This record gives sequence, C-alpha cells and structure tokens, in this order.
Amino acid sequence: MSARPRESDIPRGFSFTSAACGIKKSGLDLALLVTETPAAAAAVFTTNRVQAAPVRVSQANLAKSRSRIRGVIVNSGNANCCTGSGGLAASRRTTAELARVLGCSAEDVLVCSTGVIGVPLRVEKILRALPQVVQARRAGAGAFAQLTRAIMTTDTRPKWSAAKIRIGGKQVRLIGCAKGAGMIEPHMATMLAFIASDAAISPALLDRALRASVGTTFNAITVDGDTSTNDTLAVLANGRSGAPKIARAGAAYRKFSAALESVCRSLALAIVADGEGAQRIVEIEVRNAPAAAAADKIARTIANSPLVKTALAGADPNWGRILAAAGRASVEFDPERADIRLAGVLVCRRGREHPFSERIAHRRMLAKHVPIIVDLHAGRASRRMWTCDFTKEYVDINASYRT
Amino acid sequence: MSARPRESDIPRGFSFTSAACGIKKSGLDLALLVTETPAAAAAVFTTNRVQAAPVRVSQANLAKSRSRIRGVIVNSGNANCCTGSGGLAASRRTTAELARVLGCSAEDVLVCSTGVIGVPLRVEKILRALPQVVQARRAGAGAFAQLTRAIMTTDTRPKWSAAKIRIGGKQVRLIGCAKGAGMIEPHMATMLAFIASDAAISPALLDRALRASVGTTFNAITVDGDTSTNDTLAVLANGRSGAPKIARAGAAYRKFSAALESVCRSLALAIVADGEGAQRIVEIEVRNAPAAAAADKIARTIANSPLVKTALAGADPNWGRILAAAGRASVEFDPERADIRLAGVLVCRRGREHPFSERIAHRRMLAKHVPIIVDLHAGRASRRMWTCDFTKEYVDINASYRT
Repeated sequence: MSARPRESDIPRGFSFTSAACGIKKSGLDLALLVTETPAAAAAVFTTNRVQAAPVRVSQANLAKSRSRIRGVIVNSGNANCCTGSGGLAASRRTTAELARVLGCSAEDVLVCSTGVIGVPLRVEKILRALPQVVQARRAGAGAFAQLTRAIMTTDTRPKWSAAKIRIGGKQVRLIGCAKGAGMIEPHMATMLAFIASDAAISPALLDRALRASVGTTFNAITVDGDTSTNDTLAVLANGRSGAPKIARAGAAYRKFSAALESVCRSLALAIVADGEGAQRIVEIEVRNAPAAAAADKIARTIANSPLVKTALAGADPNWGRILAAAGRASVEFDPERADIRLAGVLVCRRGREHPFSERIAHRRMLAKHVPIIVDLHAGRASRRMWTCDFTKEYVDINASYRT
Repeated sequence: MSARPRESDIPRGFSFTSAACGIKKSGLDLALLVTETPAAAAAVFTTNRVQAAPVRVSQANLAKSRSRIRGVIVNSGNANCCTGSGGLAASRRTTAELARVLGCSAEDVLVCSTGVIGVPLRVEKILRALPQVVQARRAGAGAFAQLTRAIMTTDTRPKWSAAKIRIGGKQVRLIGCAKGAGMIEPHMATMLAFIASDAAISPALLDRALRASVGTTFNAITVDGDTSTNDTLAVLANGRSGAPKIARAGAAYRKFSAALESVCRSLALAIVADGEGAQRIVEIEVRNAPAAAAADKIARTIANSPLVKTALAGADPNWGRILAAAGRASVEFDPERADIRLAGVLVCRRGREHPFSERIAHRRMLAKHVPIIVDLHAGRASRRMWTCDFTKEYVDINASYRT
C-alpha cells in the first residue's frame, strides 16, 4: 500500500464525495461512493444480534437489487443503532433521498453509519446536505483519497488497497478502503469497508467471491473480540473496464477472486495494525489441528486472550500463556504433543520448554510483525489469524468518558 | 470478612504451617494444611485442557481417597505446569514425602502449585523442607492467618472467609482461604482455594454440596476469561466438631450447603475485588433470558468484554457497549425488548436510550460495587456474575518481562 492511490488505481466509472454536514462537532462526517452505471453488488454484515438500522436497510435493499446498485452513503459520528423505529425511518429516508437525486430506485443504494450507539440520528442534516453532496462527486484518485479520510473515526491513518488484473486482454481494477481501529471502536463500534471494481461479473459470482475472501481476511482478524453492531463490507463491480463478463467459475473468476482476497487481506491487516493502542501485528497460525473448526477456535482464543496480548505488548516470550489459552478453547488435543514457535524461535517442544535465549526472543518480539506458530500434531487442519498487542493506550482510549 | 480470623473461627482438628523453602527468590513459598484426623474431602479442578502436574496428581489421589484425606501441601513461585513426566514425578514425590512424615498413604494428601508455567520445579527444596514444615504445624487463628499470606502471589491482600452453623446442638465451623488476583495471574496462572470444616459429612454429600456451591460463586466470577492451568478448590471436613454426621440430604445438609456457599461466595468476590488493577466489583445480572445457558452466555460475554470493562474503569454509562456485547453472545433474543439498569439508573428501555442524567449515572458508577441489570423480557432464566473493571494497571502488571 503506497502512501496515496494513483490515478491508474481507480476503477472506471466511480466517483466520490466527502463532506461535513454537522453530525460530528467538526470535520468530515459524510462520504458518498457512486457508480455512474449500475453495478453488481455483494456485501456481508455484522453477525451481532443487535444490528444498526442502516445494516438492516442495506441488507433489505441488497436482497432486492443485486445487479443495479448505484451508490453507498456513509455517515460518521452516529451509528444509528438502538434507535428504534425512528432510526429505521432515518436510514430509509436517507436512501430515498439519495435515490431521488441520483435518479434511481431507493433499493439501489446502500447506507452505512458509524459512531455512538443509542443516540437518535439527526437525519435532517444528511437530507439537507445530500443534493449538494451528490452534485459535488468527482472521479479520480484525489477524491478517493479524501473519502478514505472522511470515513475515519479513531483510526490514526487512512486504509486503502488496490489490485489490477487482466481479463480478456482488458485491465480490470479493484480498489478498497476501510475504517476501524479494530473490530472494536470506542464510541463508534464500527468496522466499514468498501471495494469498487470495474470488473464485469454476475452478482451471484461476486457474492461467492466475497464470501470466499472474508473467511481468510476480515473474519481472521480481531482486536478484542467485540464484534460491532454496524460492521459492513460491500463490493461493487460496474463492468466499466470493458472486460468480458465473468459469468462462470472459470479462470477469470479465480483471477478476480484472488485479487479481491488480496485487497481484503490488505485492508484487514491495516485495521489490525491500526488497532487501538497497538504496537505490532501478531500473526497466529495453528497447524495440524484435528479439524478446521478446532483450529479456528484455538487461534481465536489465543488471539483474544488478554494475558497473551499483554505479554506481546511487553515482548515477553511467555509461551505458557499461549498454551494455557489453547487449553481453554474447548478443543480436544494433547498438550504434550504441542510445539510453539514465537517470532521464529522454538520455545516449546512437545508441551515443555525448549531451551532458548530469552534475550534473542525478546528482541525479535519487538518487531512490527510477530508470527506465532502453534503446531498441535493432532491432525491436518490449520488456521491463520491476525491480532495486535494490548497496551495501556487501549485502556486510555476506551475508558474515557463518552462526552 | 473482618481483618483477621478469630480463634473461634477455626474448625477443630486443623493445623497449619507456612515456610520459605527457596523456590521463590525471597518470601514464603510453602504452605501446609493438615487435619489431625482423616477428613472427607471434595475438590474441583481447572477445566483447562492443559493441566498442571499437581492438578493431575491431586485428582488421582482424591479418586482413591475421598474419606481419609490428611493434608494439602501448596508451593508458590512455580506452577509445575508444562513440565512433562519430570513434573508429574515431582508432584508424586511431594505427596509421598508428606505422607511418609504424616504417617499416612500417599493418596491421602493433595498437592497444589502456583507460579510460572513451563519451568522445571526444583522439588528437592520442597522435599528437604517437608519434615520440618510438618513438625512446625500449629493450630489456631495466627497460624491460619499466616497461611492466607503464604499462598499470595500478585494478590494485594489475604482472602479468607468463615461461617458457623449449629447441627444437632453442636457448633460446626467452616473457614476458607483463596489466592488469585482474578482467574488470571501474570506469571502464576493460578487460582487456589481451600476450605476446612469440622463438620461430619459423607464424602458424597460433601462433593454434592461443593459442586452446588461453585456454580453460583467461583464459576460466576471472571477477571478476563483466562482460565488457569492450576485452578483448585478443595474442601476438607474432619468431623471434629462432634456434631452428628450428615449422611442424607436433609435439613442439616441444607444448612451446611448454605454455609459452604456463603464461604465460597465471599472468597470468590474477594478475588474479583483484588483483580489485577481493579477499582471496583461489577455485578452483572441477566434477567428473563430464554434459558439458563443463554443467560450464562450473555452474562459471561458482557463480563469479559474489554469494551464494557474499560468503560467501567472510566465510570462511563455506555450502555450501548453492554447491549452490543449481549448481541454477540450467540443467543437468540430481541434487542428491542431489552432494558438495562446501570448502577440503579434505567439507561435503556426496550432497546433504546431512556432519558437519564449522565452526571448522576457517572457518579454512581464510581462506587466500589456497581450492579448492572440486563432484562431481556424473553423468558424466565437468570444469571448473576461478578467481574471487575479493566484499567491501565492491569496492562502494566501483565506486560512486564517475565524475568
């Protein structure tokens, strides 16, 4: 990911606006992504039982319109979650007004919100701003770069990623952006990501590619396990590259899927790297587990263990905490067959300490990227997850009074 | 719990020693609890798949000898966990030597360890000290008070609790002590608790009373969900009160069970109150859930949410985080029927904000004990759990380098 996107990174037929409409006390709080011609779309949403109004409205719209989506409108500063029927009406009015100005049907647009939970959204501010926001949209790298900043909340830096592939001799582009300082946001409780592509692809295959990608990317990261109420990842493909349409799961589909997964992984890792208070990315790989679900459970338990994450903050090669976390993951395995490699150093062999230099291990653990490999020798399944360390700054950011 | 136990709190027929045998660099690291006549015993152990050697040895001994236990030997400074067959041999040699000096069989004693994981235990130090430690045992409140201190690690204060009941006109006493600054210990990973009673009770009923008590006490607390590898809670009843033997589940059994539960609850709450870096106890009550397991899941998810716990550190009435945590607990419920009371203030009604004074709620949340009630209006099951807030001091304690 270079510092700023280049013009050649931007898929054809997309335009963007960022604006300040007054929902936040100051700064940009409204972002719009438009495809000038209808696009195939796919999206995944939070699995939290508590779902924000925009999540419910976008889910319903997508179910009706999977092949003619025209835009995504995003506000920050208010999550529009736990806001009752008034909240639902606010999201619906937003999509209706955007559709009116764009000249499409209300179900052809998606809406996202991010910010504090439980406070009624002052939707009039959005409705008032919308005509001007739609009018002001521009194509190009500069407008996209501004959008990556407009959706930031506690993020310390914008997050974007691009990929290019050739299909049928034509250049096809994908570009994505994300916000979120972890799954968890202090008052915002939101992870949002949007990917635009000028690929031509059927909505069904786009959905399949997206679902295949999230398992090993967005669903493989955690900052602290606090799944938000507003999580949304949407991908729009408008076909404007002129490349032949991907209508079956052949070579072109695989190429597109791989590019999509690569963009998703970059964005997901950028979120972990910018995790609240984080100093480093930690890659946890569980190898040779009895089954995929078991590998996932163990990797997740290690990745969310406060004991493991605080030891990582101190670059402490405390492998006993890693094995103890694995042990409480409700998975059957024999700890006396487990090996653990920490930052490339074999620290535990067959469940016991393997002689190693604490000094060297400590120094290696001070890196920006620390791999942990737990080999269970109990089967053939594996799982890779990414998390960050757990520092005092995390507590600082999250303990502060809401006002 | 008064500052120090009184002579009248100590059950008859028990004696105690505390000693420094050199496993820790300095300070007391060996504690012995002896019943002068064989006692009925019951115990519960960690459910972690990684179990320390002393847990495995004590479990095996208890299976063979449930009615003639003579003592419990505890070392701190080393958990004797992930130490392979050498670790198992060390625990077995400890029980054998203690039994030899006490003049009983090796299976009539229990052994516990607490401290760093993965480092071989220098058991010779314990074996060398044992004859003198057994010899030096004394009855009485002073010796018991010293033992409550000898088992401390990162604990900032000793934890004990006593209860008295009358059975068949005779006074029956229970006294217990615990160590643990939460489920989680920085290098120690251990929660230990011992309860002594001079009640006469069959091993089967003692076991039943203990299992009934832990569900609503020790199994209802969490500091951060990191179940240790060494957790042990043992209760010994030697019958020396002279009270009639409890041999069936009648009135005397219920009286004893209630006293045991009260001692367990005091000790469990003392652990949460002394949770690493904690400022306050938080009592989470989930009401009217569809089923007991659902209530437990939701209460546990809220109690372990870093977002909720950091908000509590800041006394922030951020109820949206509580509802969002409930929503990710994999339980079906309708968030739009949920009410939340925070420190006695109704902050959320039917899933939406209920008007309240942030100032008053904030002030009430600064108390030492903060109750949270989540009413789901979805059934008749309920669950109460206790946790503590999550402060920067927690990270400080746990991020430090092991050496």
